[in-house]
Amino acid sequence: MYDYKSLRVAVSDGVAQVTIDNPPVNLLDTTLIGDLGHFIGTVRDDRSVRVVVFQSANPDFFLAHVDFRYMEHPDQFAALAELVPGDGTLNPMQSLHLALRSLPQLTIVKLRGRLRGGGNEFAMAADLRFAAAGQTWLSQVESRIGIIPGGGGTQLLPRLVGRARALEVIDGALVQDDLAAALAREGQALGAVYPAPEALVAKVARAVQAGAQTPDGELDLENAIARA
Amino acid sequence: MYDYKSLRVAVSDGVAQVTIDNPPVNLLDTTLIGDLGHFIGTVRDDRSVRVVVFQSANPDFFLAHVDFRYMEHPDQFAALAELVPGDGTLNPMQSLHLALRSLPQLTIVKLRGRLRGGGNEFAMAADLRFAAAGQTWLSQVESRIGIIPGGGGTQLLPRLVGRARALEVIDGALVQDDLAAALAREGQALGAVYPAPEALVAKVARAVQAGAQTPDGELDLENAIARA
Amino acid sequence: MYDYKSLRVAVSDGVAQVTIDNPPVNLLDTTLIGDLGHFIGTVRDDRSVRVVVFQSANPDFFLAHVDFRYMEHPDQFAALAELVPGDGTLNPMQSLHLALRSLPQLTIVKLRGRLRGGGNEFAMAADLRFAAAGQTWLSQVESRIGIIPGGGGTQLLPRLVGRARALEVIDGALVQDDLAAALAREGQALGAVYPAPEALVAKVARAVQAGAQTPDGELDLENAIARA
Repeated sequence: MYDYKSLRVAVSDGVAQVTIDNPPVNLLDTTLIGDLGHFIGTVRDDRSVRVVVFQSANPDFFLAHVDFRYMEHPDQFAALAELVPGDGTLNPMQSLHLALRSLPQLTIVKLRGRLRGGGNEFAMAADLRFAAAGQTWLSQVESRIGIIPGGGGTQLLPRLVGRARALEVIDGALVQDDLAAALAREGQALGAVYPAPEALVAKVARAVQAGAQTPDGELDLENAIARA
Repeated sequence: MYDYKSLRVAVSDGVAQVTIDNPPVNLLDTTLIGDLGHFIGTVRDDRSVRVVVFQSANPDFFLAHVDFRYMEHPDQFAALAELVPGDGTLNPMQSLHLALRSLPQLTIVKLRGRLRGGGNEFAMAADLRFAAAGQTWLSQVESRIGIIPGGGGTQLLPRLVGRARALEVIDGALVQDDLAAALAREGQALGAVYPAPEALVAKVARAVQAGAQTPDGELDLENAIARA
Repeated sequence: MYDYKSLRVAVSDGVAQVTIDNPPVNLLDTTLIGDLGHFIGTVRDDRSVRVVVFQSANPDFFLAHVDFRYMEHPDQFAALAELVPGDGTLNPMQSLHLALRSLPQLTIVKLRGRLRGGGNEFAMAADLRFAAAGQTWLSQVESRIGIIPGGGGTQLLPRLVGRARALEVIDGALVQDDLAAALAREGQALGAVYPAPEALVAKVARAVQAGAQTPDGELDLENAIARA
């Protein structure tokens, strides 16, 4: 059901673990965008999955940017519309991120390494961001080539960090050293930053799954109070 | 005028100090919910009160959760509607918290100890939260028993800490150790965290009272400039 | 073109550096308000300027409050309407700050020293606030004289720091020591706080200017990738 070239998907106990593995840097090319689009379009109707966790096989890159070659081959970019959910009214990256945001499941990105441009936009479209402290670098560097973030970044970033910081990041195209410091400052807004996010990701996934398994009207009050 | 079983109210210089004292853990039962509902419904028309400060007699609990026994006796929960302000279109806890939010007075909760479920929702409905650093634990643990916060938490928490952190707290039903760390990280969002909040509570209350006592059109400019 | 009594304006490479110099404390009097109003009304149509940076000649005061003497001479305050952009539906300070917010250029205030009342409102109306850590004090102290911030503070402050902190600051008229601590806590919300903001201001200004200079459709992809 979930068999992809650039993703490895393992479903267990209601949690889908999705490992992004598109060497060398998880570039958002036709292969990876297509695989993500198909997975998101499929899992939304999979009632056996209640939590989706995205992680990277590469500790240095969670997701690099969108393949720059689309700028010389806009027809190939337009053709992505066939590979992602949506009705074609948005551009393909916006459609992909909107489909991620709209999933009925709780979505978590477990961040480590670099995220740039469309990669950062993908992470912002998830419900929760857990980042490895001191090992995660976010950036929207589109303005260096005369464009602005086009996959939802101009909407998603201000909601997470406020208009002023979003302007600083997007208009300034801050270099990584600035952004590493910024992430430390505002981890709480962009997401929760932990020394080792794996443990908390597992805990939240278990808790969501446990809550979902409690049948309505059959509460074990004594046990519930003890656990609370 | 303000004579209650589970609250002690002292009004002085325009400031009402309300001490919650419902042993052993300030459980939100019919007594405490009724007393809070009557106080809030009465003080809103008391022009002699300009600031309301809520504090707890118990340093370990500001407010525990809503009495779990209402889940086995929903008729007793419904009967709370008679004891809180409101027109009956919301559930009793939502009505209580909406009435608190709507008070014309500035409302401050001076937090120390544990707040769970409805207790945390009450605090979020106040104007200002001043918390004792390292001695305050907030939580919404409803999902452990298969329900979601029903007294306003799903609206109030996202406004204070953003959608992502609210999902993390509510869906994850985080345990206290996680939340103590979270409070330290985001004290500014949930409220101001101080080593000893008493002094600042008193200062803000005095300042509001002082501002209110200045008659329109009779400004002492020299003194005002000196104080500014 | 930009010749003023209380401002020094230098335009270079698309960046207008505006130095506020109205001794002794950059009081917002008729001279300074008129100069700021004229500059903002003029620069908005100056296509050669893409970034505006405001700084103070006085390291102890970025901007003091609005001249208190207007309270005894309301006709002089009303006459300011002729000196600031706007159609007269707002009061002169609101008009000045709305005009600043509406500039098509990116606006940055480089903060150092004290900002009070209308001075703080001016800074909040800019796009970005870069503050010198430990050398910047913000305040809205209007409530000490029985009024509330009237130049946009009651709208701008909640958007930056949330309703609760805005109530704490405005209703409490916090003294400078409290606010210095608050700025340290919530620098990220009010603006970015840096040990030496000059370097980052220059970097952001250069980046915006560089992005703006890239002609559409003539991207140097190899160079862009190397810089990203």
